[in-house]
Amino acid sequence: MADEQGFTPRSTDFSAWYNEVVLRAELADYSPVRGSMVIRPWGYGIWENMQRALDQMFKDTGHQNAYFPLLIPMSFLEREKEHVKGFAPEVAVVTHAGGKELEEPLVIRPTSETIIYAMFAKWVRSYRDLPLLINQWANVVRWEMRTRLFLRTAEFLWQEGHTAHVDEADAEAETIRMLGVYRTFMEGWMAMPPVLGRKSDSEKFAGALRTYACEAMMQDNKALQAGTSHNLGQNFARQFELKFQTAAGGEDFAWNTSWGVSTRLVGGLVMTHGDDGGVVVPPRLAPIQAVLVPIYRTDEERTLTVEKAHGLAGELKRAGVRVHVDDRDTLKPGAKYFEWERKGVPVRIEIGPRDVAKQSVMLVWRLELGGRPRKEPMLESVVVDSLPERLEQFQQALLDAAIARREANSYRGVTEYARLREIVEGAGGFVYAGWCGSPECEEKVKDDTKATIRCIPFEEFRSPEAPARCLVCGGEAKMEVIWARAY
Amino acid sequence: MADEQGFTPRSTDFSAWYNEVVLRAELADYSPVRGSMVIRPWGYGIWENMQRALDQMFKDTGHQNAYFPLLIPMSFLEREKEHVKGFAPEVAVVTHAGGKELEEPLVIRPTSETIIYAMFAKWVRSYRDLPLLINQWANVVRWEMRTRLFLRTAEFLWQEGHTAHVDEADAEAETIRMLGVYRTFMEGWMAMPPVLGRKSDSEKFAGALRTYACEAMMQDNKALQAGTSHNLGQNFARQFELKFQTAAGGEDFAWNTSWGVSTRLVGGLVMTHGDDGGVVVPPRLAPIQAVLVPIYRTDEERTLTVEKAHGLAGELKRAGVRVHVDDRDTLKPGAKYFEWERKGVPVRIEIGPRDVAKQSVMLVWRLELGGRPRKEPMLESVVVDSLPERLEQFQQALLDAAIARREANSYRGVTEYARLREIVEGAGGFVYAGWCGSPECEEKVKDDTKATIRCIPFEEFRSPEAPARCLVCGGEAKMEVIWARAY
Repeated sequence: MADEQGFTPRSTDFSAWYNEVVLRAELADYSPVRGSMVIRPWGYGIWENMQRALDQMFKDTGHQNAYFPLLIPMSFLEREKEHVKGFAPEVAVVTHAGGKELEEPLVIRPTSETIIYAMFAKWVRSYRDLPLLINQWANVVRWEMRTRLFLRTAEFLWQEGHTAHVDEADAEAETIRMLGVYRTFMEGWMAMPPVLGRKSDSEKFAGALRTYACEAMMQDNKALQAGTSHNLGQNFARQFELKFQTAAGGEDFAWNTSWGVSTRLVGGLVMTHGDDGGVVVPPRLAPIQAVLVPIYRTDEERTLTVEKAHGLAGELKRAGVRVHVDDRDTLKPGAKYFEWERKGVPVRIEIGPRDVAKQSVMLVWRLELGGRPRKEPMLESVVVDSLPERLEQFQQALLDAAIARREANSYRGVTEYARLREIVEGAGGFVYAGWCGSPECEEKVKDDTKATIRCIPFEEFRSPEAPARCLVCGGEAKMEVIWARAY
Repeated sequence: MADEQGFTPRSTDFSAWYNEVVLRAELADYSPVRGSMVIRPWGYGIWENMQRALDQMFKDTGHQNAYFPLLIPMSFLEREKEHVKGFAPEVAVVTHAGGKELEEPLVIRPTSETIIYAMFAKWVRSYRDLPLLINQWANVVRWEMRTRLFLRTAEFLWQEGHTAHVDEADAEAETIRMLGVYRTFMEGWMAMPPVLGRKSDSEKFAGALRTYACEAMMQDNKALQAGTSHNLGQNFARQFELKFQTAAGGEDFAWNTSWGVSTRLVGGLVMTHGDDGGVVVPPRLAPIQAVLVPIYRTDEERTLTVEKAHGLAGELKRAGVRVHVDDRDTLKPGAKYFEWERKGVPVRIEIGPRDVAKQSVMLVWRLELGGRPRKEPMLESVVVDSLPERLEQFQQALLDAAIARREANSYRGVTEYARLREIVEGAGGFVYAGWCGSPECEEKVKDDTKATIRCIPFEEFRSPEAPARCLVCGGEAKMEVIWARAY
């Protein structure tokens, strides 16, 4: 694997580019187990930073972490009718354990509503015990036929929030609040701006009353469902006897919500910011924000530059920057540059003997962004003070670029079905158009173009003028929706 | 569940006490899935603090986290002969997935040596790629017949370190280093002082060359194997073709190590420090280090004390103390005291109207320890400055007490077999004695008394005088060992 070997350009084959980048940036690798991948340290480091940020946000909104069993009795899944319809076809089933056949088969959790609400029923007695706000970080298994690294794998890592409330209003507020947390995270940390909205009935979670989603646009103009939040109503509470004594002294079933994001986000990050040189990791999520590369020919120069690099790294660390000194003696500087560019480290700091003499360094940003030059010579004395701010500017510039790209590929007020087809079957994009609300019109677009209703956008994302007609049948539009092909 | 209801005293039935405490302190709960438990927020919060401390130590010693598949082909397990003998009887097997029978059954990982070294073989080419230092935080499943909350469950959470090295010396150094990390953690964070040593051949890990362990003494004087570190030799490398080009230009199999600790540690913590009032959590691991309880009768007093509590809590938080204000209006102070004592919060801060007037509070420590009184009135102005140090003193006093208890129940220089039986079948304890090294003598003690060789202690833990005779057969002692009953 030569370091200088290029990737298939995105414009030639986005899908090939994605796989090459994920593998060669060492984010993940194929495993010998069908449909399961290995998350390598660089990919896992990004996921850890995602976890840390999200976990703090969950705690700040009053949630506590807990852990529930991996294995769920098949009969639990079967209690909620829509739920089992949605998940039964893709579960992995344990039939034998401890050398014996089990009396009842156990499924590996594809999601944990059933086991969690069974436990909530043990714990909740009164309205005083509500709301109950729980989150779980866990692995889940869904047996997918066609898998793709990070985006669709048989096993994936995720968090699943599960809550119980006294009434519909409180559950709905939680559902929307957590979707907002996801948005804050995606914009602020991933620099990936999602559109928020409600799912149509055909796209909602199996067993939910309403599903809301964050839909982000990738660089091939396809949508990625990046996070979902469900108001489950009393559907699960009824099946698992999750009842409570109301303040008025009566008895009622609790209202549940669940919400989740997964390691799929790592794939979304790659497809949002990556370029033909590899991954670009937004600074707030980068395991290494700045890599220092000493440049030398002689032993004397080596001592000089390596020492300087470690000194500067120590100062940057104290200033809160995640740094790494690449002082490997087995690689030339050029090979190191390619490696860290491929992995998407936001900035490289080159330190040569002449730089040391001038008490200066060369900053090389992963991308030219936001009108700044890519290469920036800087006095050492300035680096420590200014790098944290520069990293934040780089972060912001990534978000700005992603918003601009999303808007450039969003088509509002589309009223001709032919135009929808032209966009979706051409360069792709988000098509905003009217919908009469009928499943038939929704189905027709899917059959014709493989595009689906990504969401019924929240007011903030809607077009200034509400569409009058359904794009498909020409009937009265009940709402504006976004059509796009999706991952 | 009355708050004031006491636990079965430890002296009456240690095992009943343990289960009651774990359940009623809300560390964990039984689940409807056989052998699997639910880790509730209080228990999970302790585990999260354990993870945070350990993870930092792993990173400080050069390890990186990664994630490998949950499901492993049965054929992988079978490649290492000792390994499959040890684990095959207790695996859970997936035979069906996605609605079809699988061509080859998959087992849920009981441990991940096989899948991880299969991946290492893909990644390692040359001595320059070594050492490869990886850690994984994951769930594993071992189908146990007799389960106990935290101590032995079908599914548990753990970390498993897996490394590859150029030679035996480097692998052995890593094995010992990571055992040392566990010791530092157990002593410094858990206040649970383990004895360190090597396992006898009959007790070593299935597939290892040598196994080392941390053995801690619980309050019933039984041993808890709290962490293990294995030098795996080249056993797995040979089976998975984990080869590398040596510096000299030849080819060799890598040397592997693996090491792990699990949620079992939470059980160890309970059995080390708990008392008849519930759990005692060492401050460094406590999700809440200080709970503030406002005491009031009138609305006016409520406003006064609750406000004061939140103000003080804010200051303590800024001083780095993890605090919680229990301002629930539905419980009386006494009920709150019992709840937080049961859960083991190190210190409670009571704030009544008279305290507010005197600008003072009442500190009530979870235990009288280290010669300090349990109740301690303190001026508000002193609390913020002194509490972090007091918490550290409490932490140290817990460790001192645990060391003293371990030593008081350790019996050195035991030379009579009858004395071993008397101790082991009586109050229990660690019996230091000579062993000739024969499996027959080891087996006899186990059959007679249920005690096993916990370890061949490292020099630091050995008796000043080496035993001359095997305790069992009277033959020449090859080493000193520790006999005890264990969890």
